[in-house]
Amino acid sequence: MTEPQSPTHTSDLRRRVHEIIFKADTPAGKAFDIALLWTILLSVLTVMLDSVADISAEYGRPLRILEWVFTLLFTAEYFLRIYCSPRPGRYIRSFFGLVDLVSILPTYLSFFIAGSQSLLVIRALRLLRVFRILNLAQYRGEAHVLLNALKASRHKITVFLGAVLMVVLIMGATMYLIEGKEHGFDSIPTSMYWAVVTMTTVGYGDIAPQTVIGQVLASVLMILGYGIIAVPTGIVSAELVRSPVGDVRKQACPACETKGHDFDATHCKHCGAKL
Amino acid sequence: MTEPQSPTHTSDLRRRVHEIIFKADTPAGKAFDIALLWTILLSVLTVMLDSVADISAEYGRPLRILEWVFTLLFTAEYFLRIYCSPRPGRYIRSFFGLVDLVSILPTYLSFFIAGSQSLLVIRALRLLRVFRILNLAQYRGEAHVLLNALKASRHKITVFLGAVLMVVLIMGATMYLIEGKEHGFDSIPTSMYWAVVTMTTVGYGDIAPQTVIGQVLASVLMILGYGIIAVPTGIVSAELVRSPVGDVRKQACPACETKGHDFDATHCKHCGAKL
Amino acid sequence: MTEPQSPTHTSDLRRRVHEIIFKADTPAGKAFDIALLWTILLSVLTVMLDSVADISAEYGRPLRILEWVFTLLFTAEYFLRIYCSPRPGRYIRSFFGLVDLVSILPTYLSFFIAGSQSLLVIRALRLLRVFRILNLAQYRGEAHVLLNALKASRHKITVFLGAVLMVVLIMGATMYLIEGKEHGFDSIPTSMYWAVVTMTTVGYGDIAPQTVIGQVLASVLMILGYGIIAVPTGIVSAELVRSPVGDVRKQACPACETKGHDFDATHCKHCGAKL
Amino acid sequence: MTEPQSPTHTSDLRRRVHEIIFKADTPAGKAFDIALLWTILLSVLTVMLDSVADISAEYGRPLRILEWVFTLLFTAEYFLRIYCSPRPGRYIRSFFGLVDLVSILPTYLSFFIAGSQSLLVIRALRLLRVFRILNLAQYRGEAHVLLNALKASRHKITVFLGAVLMVVLIMGATMYLIEGKEHGFDSIPTSMYWAVVTMTTVGYGDIAPQTVIGQVLASVLMILGYGIIAVPTGIVSAELVRSPVGDVRKQACPACETKGHDFDATHCKHCGAKL
Repeated sequence: MTEPQSPTHTSDLRRRVHEIIFKADTPAGKAFDIALLWTILLSVLTVMLDSVADISAEYGRPLRILEWVFTLLFTAEYFLRIYCSPRPGRYIRSFFGLVDLVSILPTYLSFFIAGSQSLLVIRALRLLRVFRILNLAQYRGEAHVLLNALKASRHKITVFLGAVLMVVLIMGATMYLIEGKEHGFDSIPTSMYWAVVTMTTVGYGDIAPQTVIGQVLASVLMILGYGIIAVPTGIVSAELVRSPVGDVRKQACPACETKGHDFDATHCKHCGAKL
Repeated sequence: MTEPQSPTHTSDLRRRVHEIIFKADTPAGKAFDIALLWTILLSVLTVMLDSVADISAEYGRPLRILEWVFTLLFTAEYFLRIYCSPRPGRYIRSFFGLVDLVSILPTYLSFFIAGSQSLLVIRALRLLRVFRILNLAQYRGEAHVLLNALKASRHKITVFLGAVLMVVLIMGATMYLIEGKEHGFDSIPTSMYWAVVTMTTVGYGDIAPQTVIGQVLASVLMILGYGIIAVPTGIVSAELVRSPVGDVRKQACPACETKGHDFDATHCKHCGAKL
Repeated sequence: MTEPQSPTHTSDLRRRVHEIIFKADTPAGKAFDIALLWTILLSVLTVMLDSVADISAEYGRPLRILEWVFTLLFTAEYFLRIYCSPRPGRYIRSFFGLVDLVSILPTYLSFFIAGSQSLLVIRALRLLRVFRILNLAQYRGEAHVLLNALKASRHKITVFLGAVLMVVLIMGATMYLIEGKEHGFDSIPTSMYWAVVTMTTVGYGDIAPQTVIGQVLASVLMILGYGIIAVPTGIVSAELVRSPVGDVRKQACPACETKGHDFDATHCKHCGAKL
Repeated sequence: MTEPQSPTHTSDLRRRVHEIIFKADTPAGKAFDIALLWTILLSVLTVMLDSVADISAEYGRPLRILEWVFTLLFTAEYFLRIYCSPRPGRYIRSFFGLVDLVSILPTYLSFFIAGSQSLLVIRALRLLRVFRILNLAQYRGEAHVLLNALKASRHKITVFLGAVLMVVLIMGATMYLIEGKEHGFDSIPTSMYWAVVTMTTVGYGDIAPQTVIGQVLASVLMILGYGIIAVPTGIVSAELVRSPVGDVRKQACPACETKGHDFDATHCKHCGAKL
């Protein structure tokens, strides 16, 4: 009668490990998360340094050993997560589960495909866990506002992107006809690449119009790209201005509990009760 | 007495074809539109691939055959549209009618003018039909909001563009005097092209000031262009913030005539009367 | 007794000329203004074409004759304006008076200083008269809103520009120390020019950092410049959103004639009278 | 009895010097500040000119003498400030105290480290004192609005910068794999530098993708960078639109508690009660 819910020794251990690895609200869990973040940062740095020819030539061996150490650590962590997760299948298929797996594969793949280690920078995605140990409510709220504004404007942004791509396609083909191969506009895809470079105001200058008519058309495209940036900016600004944070009363209606009343409302917009 | 409205066999067929080709709300009409979009996409891709030298050298023959197949298909479709349209003249003069015609002409023109096939990418404009099979109300609404915001700001944008062109003209002439032919500022039109490239922050670098005074003037132009982008952006933002669609009902309260109710409001936020 | 206010013949002519030249609300005045605008456009085009080496070599003589014809026409117009103006001194010192004078001087100066004809593009400023024959009220209102928004934000923009210049100065000096003459950062002014080119996202690429630490600093400067553009844009957007056009009732208070009431106001905010 | 608060002669002098050096509201204090600003400007100009090879070769000696004169002046001023400050320790550790110290050190350091004089441009930071003699309330208010808007959006901006850095890291590594050393993408850090140059739309063109797949990915990055600028712009715009300064009083109506009155309102716009 005293031990009906007593777990077995194994499941007790599993629960404790789960708490440390998956939660950030206990001292041990927070310490684990911070250590993990530093390890990820160091591991990404190792990959970056290994790609620099001079450094790789001199410190190639220790860097590769470090890489293996990090990979083995992350592999162990991955299996530990599967082991202690109450629903392993769900973790494996989750976003973080996939990132964790993809973060260790390239090192093993490097046995078969040379150079695949550079893919290890995908580990940077693991840094997204940083939001776990920051003031969650705060940042999650901010990210929420941004994502909501983007979501609310997704149709407008689709229309905008469609218009941009159509301009790029038609401008690219026109410039290919006007400038031609002798001025670097080798093909329609290359000309479209130039149109993107120009319209987004990046302007590498590796391809540039030389004929008068080409320069006139390019000028039109530039002014178009320069002005059209106003559209997505306006869309997002408008959404953020309208976003309820700071704009809408937090007070719920005393009668029907509807939220989201304007500050100047004196009656509930839903049931008409006095606020 | 039983067949006063009975159409002839021909006009019956015509009506059915019309429904399939021009409408998207029947299964057959929707299937036709989707098939059409894929055909247009493939045809645009064919033109793009044909322009790449390597691919054209190897697969030139099949690509050109494909091009003819697409052109003949689109020609057939064009005449079918004229045939089944209740008012053919109106279709021919409509925006889509013109685009449909211009989409097939270049292939026939290529008999007379070499290279005119590249103009076939104009077919991309036919992709605008995509809006027909998407959730119309949704996207038409969004495009409407964007177009309205642009329309409401057209006078402000005209004033803005006029100011930009005047700055480009005067800056171009000044830089032509200062830098001169030896630094690539060959003529006033070329210098104006440079001014557009600089002011829109594209910055190819094919022409760049070399003298100290030229660099100072260019810096002023850059900071002007960098800051002035705020103006169209602000204009469009302000219009979108003000645009009522999706945010505020136009209907006033029947009791107190307060406006600006949210779309989900059922009672006036001011006096509590039923809307 | 019948002719006490009868003007002399001269002053009558003067008044008629004044009406044609200075006003745009009579048919003759409007026709004069339109002819003037076309003449200015053609004259600017002449200067632009004359600067292109190929065209100047072939058509140099007629172009120069045209230039003299335009200059003589504008000189005649200038003196006519002085003659018929009721207060000539005021016209001469006005903005348009100065532009009119500056628009004819370079041709005469070209006797003494070679190449000064390029300055004739300053004639483009005369095109500002275009606003006279457009729907004045409309465009003047729009320009007014834009100028008001800019005026209201001038202190914020001053603070912003001061910050930008300080960053440019300090970044320029730092990059001069780090990269040095061998990488194109010849002097502090040159490095500051590079900093402006980079921060405004123009990016010619004629000067670019080569050392690792220089590239890191340049990256910081780029992200700063990329993000900081949000500040003037936000300032202007906010001002335009607040600008009363379309936001504020046109109705004045019946009691005290105060204007600028919000749309949801039911009482005058100044005297409390019912609206 | 008559001299209980009489200060000693020294502390009297100290107080007068303090008033001139630290305050700007007396004529002497204002004159001192203006003279100081001009001295700082001249001193920064001296450093800039000294860095230009041609000028340094010809006027090197007088420029270096000037530099020493300015440094000695600023050193004297620094010690005077410490002397007359009522709490010297606080001044030394304050922002301006540190800037004042750092502004004189490089000249002395140049005995030991050649070239360190260029660091003297840090003196430009001393120009921030300019706000002391301008209409303080005005500018401080504006700077306050801007800083508040930035502070209110700091979490959103952190989220945004984190996203940008992650894209730069992953895009840089991917392009390093795709383009490789032969196209200038020497290492992951170099590729990340390219990603920053591209995403911020600077686009030097010193490194540019050459392979088709690289150009496609670069196009995606450009459109991303071009569109994503909308996010910080929207954030700052929204904050500035919401910022109440200059637009709306915080005071509610005493009778009906309506908020959002204009600053010039003397009666409640809702019920007409006196504010």
